[in-house]
Amino acid sequence: MSQPKTRRSGGRAARQAMRAAPLSEAKRPVRAGMSGGAYKPLTNEQILAIHESALEALETIGLADAPQSGVDIMVKVGAILGDDGRLRYPRAIILEALEKAAKGITLYSRDGKNDLTLSGKRVHYGTAGAAVHMVDVEGNDYRESTIQDLHDAARIVDKMDNIHFLQRPMVARDILDNYEMDMNTIYASCAGTTKHIGTSIFDPEYVQGCLDLLHTIAGGEEAWRARPFVSNSNCFVVPPMKFATESCSVMEACIAGGMPVLLLSAGMAGATAPSTVAGAIVQAVAECLAGVFYVNAVKPGHPAIFGTWPFGLDLRTGAMTGGSGEQALLTAGCAQMHHFYGLPGGAVGGISDAKMPDMQAGWEQMCSNMTAGLSGLNMVYEAAGMHASLLGFCHESLIMGNDIIGQALRCVRGIEVDEVTMAVDQIRSVCMGGPGHYLGTDETLARMESDYVYPLTGDRTSPKEWAEIGKPNLVQTAISKKEEILAERSAAAFDPLLDLNIRENFNIHLDV
Amino acid sequence: MSQPKTRRSGGRAARQAMRAAPLSEAKRPVRAGMSGGAYKPLTNEQILAIHESALEALETIGLADAPQSGVDIMVKVGAILGDDGRLRYPRAIILEALEKAAKGITLYSRDGKNDLTLSGKRVHYGTAGAAVHMVDVEGNDYRESTIQDLHDAARIVDKMDNIHFLQRPMVARDILDNYEMDMNTIYASCAGTTKHIGTSIFDPEYVQGCLDLLHTIAGGEEAWRARPFVSNSNCFVVPPMKFATESCSVMEACIAGGMPVLLLSAGMAGATAPSTVAGAIVQAVAECLAGVFYVNAVKPGHPAIFGTWPFGLDLRTGAMTGGSGEQALLTAGCAQMHHFYGLPGGAVGGISDAKMPDMQAGWEQMCSNMTAGLSGLNMVYEAAGMHASLLGFCHESLIMGNDIIGQALRCVRGIEVDEVTMAVDQIRSVCMGGPGHYLGTDETLARMESDYVYPLTGDRTSPKEWAEIGKPNLVQTAISKKEEILAERSAAAFDPLLDLNIRENFNIHLDV
Repeated sequence: MSQPKTRRSGGRAARQAMRAAPLSEAKRPVRAGMSGGAYKPLTNEQILAIHESALEALETIGLADAPQSGVDIMVKVGAILGDDGRLRYPRAIILEALEKAAKGITLYSRDGKNDLTLSGKRVHYGTAGAAVHMVDVEGNDYRESTIQDLHDAARIVDKMDNIHFLQRPMVARDILDNYEMDMNTIYASCAGTTKHIGTSIFDPEYVQGCLDLLHTIAGGEEAWRARPFVSNSNCFVVPPMKFATESCSVMEACIAGGMPVLLLSAGMAGATAPSTVAGAIVQAVAECLAGVFYVNAVKPGHPAIFGTWPFGLDLRTGAMTGGSGEQALLTAGCAQMHHFYGLPGGAVGGISDAKMPDMQAGWEQMCSNMTAGLSGLNMVYEAAGMHASLLGFCHESLIMGNDIIGQALRCVRGIEVDEVTMAVDQIRSVCMGGPGHYLGTDETLARMESDYVYPLTGDRTSPKEWAEIGKPNLVQTAISKKEEILAERSAAAFDPLLDLNIRENFNIHLDV
Repeated sequence: MSQPKTRRSGGRAARQAMRAAPLSEAKRPVRAGMSGGAYKPLTNEQILAIHESALEALETIGLADAPQSGVDIMVKVGAILGDDGRLRYPRAIILEALEKAAKGITLYSRDGKNDLTLSGKRVHYGTAGAAVHMVDVEGNDYRESTIQDLHDAARIVDKMDNIHFLQRPMVARDILDNYEMDMNTIYASCAGTTKHIGTSIFDPEYVQGCLDLLHTIAGGEEAWRARPFVSNSNCFVVPPMKFATESCSVMEACIAGGMPVLLLSAGMAGATAPSTVAGAIVQAVAECLAGVFYVNAVKPGHPAIFGTWPFGLDLRTGAMTGGSGEQALLTAGCAQMHHFYGLPGGAVGGISDAKMPDMQAGWEQMCSNMTAGLSGLNMVYEAAGMHASLLGFCHESLIMGNDIIGQALRCVRGIEVDEVTMAVDQIRSVCMGGPGHYLGTDETLARMESDYVYPLTGDRTSPKEWAEIGKPNLVQTAISKKEEILAERSAAAFDPLLDLNIRENFNIHLDV
């Protein structure tokens, strides 16, 4: 189809002027927490079958390697410790734990402006991961990631409307001491954004120090416990079907400290999980159900996210891959299981295997971000900035990811159908005695802001205009946006007195 | 999440050797005609409401500008010509036409190997459009498209497993005479691929000549009529709600000549259609229902595709845009209307607004190709290669588009859930006394080909491997693939005697 001749006409100046004004919150076409669910790769029968298989796995296979504290806690409420050291779970006690488990939890932001309500099929996108590299876009290279990179990522996330939380996406390779790394990860994240933060504490002994820092930031333990703005990502299992002993101890300490936990089961289909999509989901669900049992044995109703994160694999090489259709299905299928249990859930979307922010990165990031959103996944982790199958993080890609997620969210929002939107009266008045087009109608102007998502970095010029404005390069546009954001002082920076207080009590590596 | 240490181990050489062999047809993980439908942006009530609104529009607004022949034909079977020159359609006669309309049609390939069955929610992806430019990737520029470019596109499509048909995506700007352009479009397309071809004949007077050429290629009129391997795309309406007089006459001639027709309604939401997604769908459905009425008044049961192609618009500028979430919704909503009517249907997917095959192009192409496939759209037009909001076509992007569509099709295929895929027994044997991972299991090896889609151009190496192999550039990889394909003789080239015969009777511009 060629384009109609009307390409440039009808009140363009008026529309551009209107559009130049910043959007009021009420008019924003997309926002955090829109409800998905129009995409259902699994039928209800299939969901039930997966549920039954997971229960069978828990009852007959169970999980090995729980720490002694966890064994004691779980056996006390019905888990059975076998001679083989595996904890097994009769179905009745799992169903009981599901009753007790927290539903509809809130992940707090530090300033109260970006709280996330995890219930139903509400969708939120954010970062996550443990990349060890930064993508050096201008140098076409990879380098080790630093605490400054993490802080910069936080500052960018703070400015991106469609990135709703910052879970630590990369490891600060320039801090060699693990305790200091954990501490500085929290500092660098919180000093960069007031949105909800996810971190991952390395050792159970570090938890109290991290909590001390969080209490200081919050203005006391009570304030922290009232609105915990940092959650802890617990890789509580080493798939297949083993507890991660240390990580479980961290989790117990976090629960005691009032931190919401992410129960993260990260099997790789074909390596540490079955190679089939259904099998990888069964195992992830079984593992996370064990996690739910564990958390609710420690503290009934403690906020926990059902983190089925099965990853795809390239079976030719045995290497992980996150940019595939298989990944997109794994994630969406998991989201349906979360809905079945009525639990707040998270999985991965938006991972790219591409090394640079190229066309492959674009299609890969959209692929699983789309299925995640349409399926109504509560928390889409690793949704932006993630390259090289999770090994590299890219600030420019994070900015472009905001555009990707914006369009995915537009799809999540869906199609409003009523007398006004179906517009038969408008069609009538335009066609019969009217102008014969809709460009200037009140209805069109009224919808310009509320219905349409415009890209920040994406370019929509015609080839002629594009040449006239000097053929803007997409990656260069993203670099400029990044520099613009990082040139400003962080809006989330701590009050100077508080900052001084923190620096007196904790070894902060970051200069801000 | 960081990657497990198992990244490179477990029978890798065996898997790579197995994978190096070409895939048998039976083992291909994705193919043409897989059934979608797991994504339903519209509820059944909303579908009915849109249907009723479309009927109301046909009954009370109707369409202007039918050619006299069309007026005569349609009035004879119940359409009402108003004093205002508009044809109106009582709902009963539309419902009657729907009864008569062809369902489950076949679009034939020339060699019988790639016939497309358009029924239910079977999905097929292909090219389409009327771009006037070629994207010159190496020169970072746009230039006018030529007949050679079209032929090359056909040859590339012939080699791409996931591009199932070639509808003419660009106009041969180097052929000034419109009749010769139509003729050469058919020649260049058919000489490049044996897959089903879509063309668009400019003038009713050209149809007979085009049919003569098709009869020659087919080996006679009878053979042509038995398996018409070229369909005609008819922009039979000029939205809103007007027939395109000339194009309707072309359509009548095509029907007489036994060509399947695509009833193409290409409104732009906010310009030539209402700015709401629902309104644009209502108008497109109304227009295509008028088209179904028309076709079945001319020849009951003639194969026609319900071509609701509403496009998105950037309301800030009035320029068309195809890479948005709004576009993705328009297309998926239309697919549901096709299913409601039980008619073979088509819409647009995969359009990019980006000028070059960059990250934006990747996310835009995946966005609507994904919703199109998941919604079960029979014919996804403009699914690969289309840039600059349809103004430019790109051979390299067409090749990368094959990868995009491959992953989208993997999602269309969905999740198989049964005792084997849920794999509880495998989990048990791996965890209890087994190796503790799935890398070498028979089940994993058996699924390596049948379950996983591997990219042709996409790169999945680690940063280390990527550096070792010289940091392959994605676009450069696509350029190499293109050159490789175009260096070979076209597999669809005509037999030399037939070619001589054609060239004696038609003015063929292309040297092959």
